[in-house]
Amino acid sequence: MEKAIIGKELVKILGKEKVLVDELDLMYYSYDSSFLTKLEPSNPFAVAMPTSTEEVQQVVRFAWENNINIVPRGAGTGETGGCIAVNGGIVLDLSTWDEIVEIDARNMQVIVRPGVIHANLNDELAKYNLFFPPDPGSSKMCTIGGMVANNASGLRAVKYWATEPYVLGLEVVMPNGDVIITGGMKSRAIKNVSGINLTKFMVGSEGVLGIITRIRLRCFPKPRARGIAMAVFDCLDDAPATVLDVYQAGVLPSGIEILDSSAITAVNEFKPEINLPAAEAILLFEVDGNPPSVDFEGEIIQQIAKKRARSVEWATEEKRMTELWEGRSVTATAAARVRPDGSRIFAGEDISVPLSRVADTLRAIRALGDKYGIKVVNYGHIGDGNVHTAPVINPENPDEVEKVLKMVDEIHLLAIEMGGTTTGEHGVGAVRRPYAEAEHGKAVEYMRKAKEAFDPKGIMNPGKVF
Amino acid sequence: MEKAIIGKELVKILGKEKVLVDELDLMYYSYDSSFLTKLEPSNPFAVAMPTSTEEVQQVVRFAWENNINIVPRGAGTGETGGCIAVNGGIVLDLSTWDEIVEIDARNMQVIVRPGVIHANLNDELAKYNLFFPPDPGSSKMCTIGGMVANNASGLRAVKYWATEPYVLGLEVVMPNGDVIITGGMKSRAIKNVSGINLTKFMVGSEGVLGIITRIRLRCFPKPRARGIAMAVFDCLDDAPATVLDVYQAGVLPSGIEILDSSAITAVNEFKPEINLPAAEAILLFEVDGNPPSVDFEGEIIQQIAKKRARSVEWATEEKRMTELWEGRSVTATAAARVRPDGSRIFAGEDISVPLSRVADTLRAIRALGDKYGIKVVNYGHIGDGNVHTAPVINPENPDEVEKVLKMVDEIHLLAIEMGGTTTGEHGVGAVRRPYAEAEHGKAVEYMRKAKEAFDPKGIMNPGKVF
Repeated sequence: MEKAIIGKELVKILGKEKVLVDELDLMYYSYDSSFLTKLEPSNPFAVAMPTSTEEVQQVVRFAWENNINIVPRGAGTGETGGCIAVNGGIVLDLSTWDEIVEIDARNMQVIVRPGVIHANLNDELAKYNLFFPPDPGSSKMCTIGGMVANNASGLRAVKYWATEPYVLGLEVVMPNGDVIITGGMKSRAIKNVSGINLTKFMVGSEGVLGIITRIRLRCFPKPRARGIAMAVFDCLDDAPATVLDVYQAGVLPSGIEILDSSAITAVNEFKPEINLPAAEAILLFEVDGNPPSVDFEGEIIQQIAKKRARSVEWATEEKRMTELWEGRSVTATAAARVRPDGSRIFAGEDISVPLSRVADTLRAIRALGDKYGIKVVNYGHIGDGNVHTAPVINPENPDEVEKVLKMVDEIHLLAIEMGGTTTGEHGVGAVRRPYAEAEHGKAVEYMRKAKEAFDPKGIMNPGKVF
Repeated sequence: MEKAIIGKELVKILGKEKVLVDELDLMYYSYDSSFLTKLEPSNPFAVAMPTSTEEVQQVVRFAWENNINIVPRGAGTGETGGCIAVNGGIVLDLSTWDEIVEIDARNMQVIVRPGVIHANLNDELAKYNLFFPPDPGSSKMCTIGGMVANNASGLRAVKYWATEPYVLGLEVVMPNGDVIITGGMKSRAIKNVSGINLTKFMVGSEGVLGIITRIRLRCFPKPRARGIAMAVFDCLDDAPATVLDVYQAGVLPSGIEILDSSAITAVNEFKPEINLPAAEAILLFEVDGNPPSVDFEGEIIQQIAKKRARSVEWATEEKRMTELWEGRSVTATAAARVRPDGSRIFAGEDISVPLSRVADTLRAIRALGDKYGIKVVNYGHIGDGNVHTAPVINPENPDEVEKVLKMVDEIHLLAIEMGGTTTGEHGVGAVRRPYAEAEHGKAVEYMRKAKEAFDPKGIMNPGKVF
């Protein structure tokens, strides 16, 4: 079917204010944060912005009948090309469908439509002394639908897991237009083991199985207090060793972040007033809970960290916590500035390795940077081994682009070699698809079988995941 | 294929010490704890007891080639008939394969074979100051394989979830004999979003998709302290109201249990020395964490509970905690004794309803008991709405059996009506299969599609789940 006809048919279904067909508008949907889509942007045929299950269903049915690809999109903050129509098709922009349907505080849960922004949801939940613990760095922009589709997490996954456990039920428009409700049609139960777990199967499926149109999330009581410890190390290996000792002392911090020497340098060059101590590694521990618990765990962390760290500081006052955290907060921005003519690119940015291999992994990534002559900044969620790597290049220089793509390939293979994964939280999308077999072997066949069972025509976000 | 030939072929594969074919031996495998399998026991054709992936694979291939059903079984502690060959077939008894492959303390995880007993695993993990938090009542008997297959939980799910989040990866023998590894072939990563999540899809699939032969579990640091509060209520509705207030005060206890008046009476009749106060409801709160945190939360729970409770007691000494908890510990046994000529049956025993409907649900179950003239004892995990109901009948009396089956049907429909589920933690098995459509509607079609994609011959635990 011709693009022009697709646009006209979508307008018939949704009205013209919910459909985009101008190439200039479509260009915005041709990329996300990934480097790949900057190199190879791909305009969709059209963009549809439905705001009801019926509208999604009608668009999907139209696509199904006419063999047109459908690509769901939230805020487009992803770093994998997951929301890009790499093989053409209709992008379903769900970001305008941002209704919090119900905060069911009595049952410790909330029901939302996919376009709700993460930070907005937590602002509303705070009025009931509740929170939805996963906390992506893109909190102020990313949508809950995108978080569920990518099983997003962030700083607090160490203690609070990723999005997945919180998802109690979903409404999903399947590739042929069927609407299913997972987790019980009328259920508000918190615990439920009835049936094969389609809910968890949809979480993290990156849009290849169906379109998520309604999300029922469990909420937790909001903790009363938190505290932050900063520990500075002259030896890289001392950082993961300290993390392990903290765990073995019975403490599960809500977050444990690392900046290695590359990140420390980047931060100090970007904002000299932050003035991080020059070191091989800085660890930031966040603990949360009730006030005496926070104090107690802060004391333990200090004692343990002092065994190896050059210095340790502990804070519970909001102002000082913000200061201690500032280095970490600006790392991503700082990384982009390590070369005046360079840009930080999102590629190879999300490997996750066993805690025991974090130091080796960081050293190996530095060595790769040297090998290819590319500046690399490393930081991340060391508590769960999730290393964020920021290569900085001049993306207009084809030689540098070629080199960085080779380096990123080596980083992904390194992750697998280290007993880790190419992606700890950002997802596979189009970017990490080539590694599916290396990571999962024969299991990929069964991912494909499931995909084919749900989407025999293959219209749902093709070219992604595997 | 004739039974005798099946037995002989299995002996060729496994050797005779790993195969059972005598009808007397097979009878043990004809039932689990469910009432249904006591009414309608069903001997398998043979029992195979493999202790390696290759042995499982060979047995499954033999079954696949000859269209023989395969039914996996752990310790047989289930209450749903899930491990019974209701349509005939080979039972794979995995309980003898009880190897803890590796405690990888540095990476906060453990790798086990399916037959490891839950309590044994936690005993071993305790040596490393680690624990696997889900805690089924059958801890000393049930296997980790069974827990994963049923997504088991227990007292601590309020704070620590069910088994599912802890499962980082699985080795699974698929119906045609393929062996897949989910969660990354060589992975020891804690966080991983690569690929469609086959790991979580297998968790709770009750053996209808494949045979779990290896399990990689995340462990948590073992908390240092715990405390228990007992609160006694004259009004049933005050119990869930108190639970909600505790949550809203920012406290997430590790367990919240309820005994209603029926359970209190049963306990006191069974063991008068426990001497529970006569009341409409007793709540038991368990909190865990570090010592000052436990004290702080204990103080909050006491303050909140005192607003409605007739009496509140708080304990942190091991001896007194055990005494306070004893009423709950003996409830299941006590329930069985409320009639000298009766037996507690496991049927309708595991509904889970929204917290806001717990009191209404308990009242409705009592009314059903009155309607059918059947003694019923209610208790359970109120923190997540999971109500355990114990009907006590004379199972030799056909009239009582007929009545109780009608009552149980009404309890299951009540759960759905209340916005809950027929099963919070025990699973569907053969017993709750008739409610799949009422609970899940069209989603059942997609469960079937996935099942058919993985098991086109339908040999894997047929007659279960949907």
